[in-house]
Amino acid sequence: MLKQYLLTPGPTPVPPQVALKEALPIIHHRTDEFASIYKDISEGLKYVFQTKNKVYTLACSGTGAMEMAIVNLLSPNDEIVVASCGNFGDRWIEIAQSYGIKVVSVCVEWGEVVSPLQIEKTLKENPNIKAVFTTFVETSTGVVNDIKSIGKIVANTNAVFVVDAISGIVGQEFKTDLWKVDVVVSASQKGFMLPPGLAFITFSQKAKEMVEVSKLPKFYFDIKKYKKFHLKNQTPFTPPVTLIVALGETIKLIKAKKLNTFWNDCKLFSKATRKGMQALELKLFAKVPCEVVTTAVVPKNIGEKIVKILRKKYSVFIAGGQGKLKGRVIRFAHMGYISKADLLAGFACLEMVLSELGVNIEKGKAVAAFQEELSGE
Amino acid sequence: MLKQYLLTPGPTPVPPQVALKEALPIIHHRTDEFASIYKDISEGLKYVFQTKNKVYTLACSGTGAMEMAIVNLLSPNDEIVVASCGNFGDRWIEIAQSYGIKVVSVCVEWGEVVSPLQIEKTLKENPNIKAVFTTFVETSTGVVNDIKSIGKIVANTNAVFVVDAISGIVGQEFKTDLWKVDVVVSASQKGFMLPPGLAFITFSQKAKEMVEVSKLPKFYFDIKKYKKFHLKNQTPFTPPVTLIVALGETIKLIKAKKLNTFWNDCKLFSKATRKGMQALELKLFAKVPCEVVTTAVVPKNIGEKIVKILRKKYSVFIAGGQGKLKGRVIRFAHMGYISKADLLAGFACLEMVLSELGVNIEKGKAVAAFQEELSGE
Repeated sequence: MLKQYLLTPGPTPVPPQVALKEALPIIHHRTDEFASIYKDISEGLKYVFQTKNKVYTLACSGTGAMEMAIVNLLSPNDEIVVASCGNFGDRWIEIAQSYGIKVVSVCVEWGEVVSPLQIEKTLKENPNIKAVFTTFVETSTGVVNDIKSIGKIVANTNAVFVVDAISGIVGQEFKTDLWKVDVVVSASQKGFMLPPGLAFITFSQKAKEMVEVSKLPKFYFDIKKYKKFHLKNQTPFTPPVTLIVALGETIKLIKAKKLNTFWNDCKLFSKATRKGMQALELKLFAKVPCEVVTTAVVPKNIGEKIVKILRKKYSVFIAGGQGKLKGRVIRFAHMGYISKADLLAGFACLEMVLSELGVNIEKGKAVAAFQEELSGE
Repeated sequence: MLKQYLLTPGPTPVPPQVALKEALPIIHHRTDEFASIYKDISEGLKYVFQTKNKVYTLACSGTGAMEMAIVNLLSPNDEIVVASCGNFGDRWIEIAQSYGIKVVSVCVEWGEVVSPLQIEKTLKENPNIKAVFTTFVETSTGVVNDIKSIGKIVANTNAVFVVDAISGIVGQEFKTDLWKVDVVVSASQKGFMLPPGLAFITFSQKAKEMVEVSKLPKFYFDIKKYKKFHLKNQTPFTPPVTLIVALGETIKLIKAKKLNTFWNDCKLFSKATRKGMQALELKLFAKVPCEVVTTAVVPKNIGEKIVKILRKKYSVFIAGGQGKLKGRVIRFAHMGYISKADLLAGFACLEMVLSELGVNIEKGKAVAAFQEELSGE
């Protein structure tokens, strides 16, 4: 009977009209009915990714799509740049190294954003670089990288630009073609408002040329297999039918509400959430905060305790810190199917928990700061 | 408003009480609640696979789990035996070759089963073979291989025995440990009565030792990552939460009904279906028919037409032939959540369609033959 509030950066809440689609009798995938749904979602995904290129739907988590980018673009001993500013940026390094790729890493401290100038310098110093990999929204720290500026730099070289936009897409402005991003990967459980289980990937013309000469071994993640079936609005391997039917529904919702409205909502929510955190005298961790999740530093390493008590006493789910941030921060998500009222409730409960843990705060202050920001709407 | 009858060998119908679980509000995966569900399903999967070893749940199609077996067991230039008798057996060859593995293939004509004696001979002639790969139920032809006999042979060598049990498991008797199968892969959309999107894999002690020295590149499919998280009842990458919750429900149903009852049901249904096909003078294609799907040869290459008209006029979904069997056969599935009444309806509609297509049959005869077999119950 616990009524849960999910304020986590993935999975995010699934709208009930979408969730109910998953409960419908399953349909067979090798049918016109499925192909018609697949065609619609593929068109819709182009809008969401803001690209003219095909967007492929995969059966895996976001990490699988990241691996797909690497194994389809590269060959053994290729050199790449990875610009990492957190846990998920580091994942690019780990995947690439698993495949014997030479990684020049351009890492910054957690909380900072990657530096376009440093990437430019690195590309000049290493003329053999085949690709630059980075992260749009780094969920582990809550920053957003300047993809547009990096895109301009990489476009002037022979390298392709690959972005993990697993978090962020739908939530805040992201323009694949305009920003000259060659490969974008994403997944279903964040801005898409779906359960996890689907991932997405798209390739530019420049990237497709690299795919043609890529020699890394692959089978399940071989984009050429997907390309062949995509022409028939099908996937090479049995797809997660119910999740794809549900995706058809969220694509409809996204188109109806329009991407711009999602972007504006998240911008407002993130501003209000930052004000709320500051009202509680919690320092913001991200130097350049993204608009889908807010990371706040908590005193005395009580991050895990806050998360636990919020869950136990209020069924409010927020995220704690990952890796070296464990205990040090809390992360409040405000993307997808998360409303103003959800966030106000979340702050009210957070105040109770902080107070219970002996943090010197004034109850109601974060809620008031959040309200203040909303009323300026 | 079309009321669909799904008599396809994957996806198979999902029981409504399971489907409804997918519509419940999504829960977060890094929680005690999820860990408790994951623990229960992992225990339940041991029962389904009839093994003492851990069974891992993956976010991919069955093919992903097949690739996982290959990349975790082998190293570049390793030699393996693939015993193939159809489309899915051939897939082992394709995946292995994508990774530079040397394949000694022991193939038989479609419709035949792989020969344990031939495997024994091949292993003697090729002492460096690291692993033997085959298929339990070859869905493309409808045969079942003698896994028990092959298991005995491979167990006497240093090679490990890897079986694709994507089709068949739950539907007909399969005993991982007793039959000395070292690695088993399966997926959610067949006997498990779930939508596609989950796959499963298990490793014996002998296989685990091979995993330790495997050098093929991998990341998303690296079993060591799953092993580490499995200890905490978690997965290394965000799992398809709703499908796992639904799996919890089918595991309950399977335990309540008992594997034996599923096996007996499918045995009876397959016998009755074969009688039904024979009553229509359709030749059975499989030399050793499995108990989850029946493949029948149709006259004049009208297989695709039959499938199409059954869908269009009766919303009854059966499968046609794959690859070289396209047009030549039809495939009726009788596993999972498919009932006697479903099959009787399917046969009645099939009779109508055959008649419409000018095949000389006596209406009611297949239904009568099916009924006859049931009444002997």
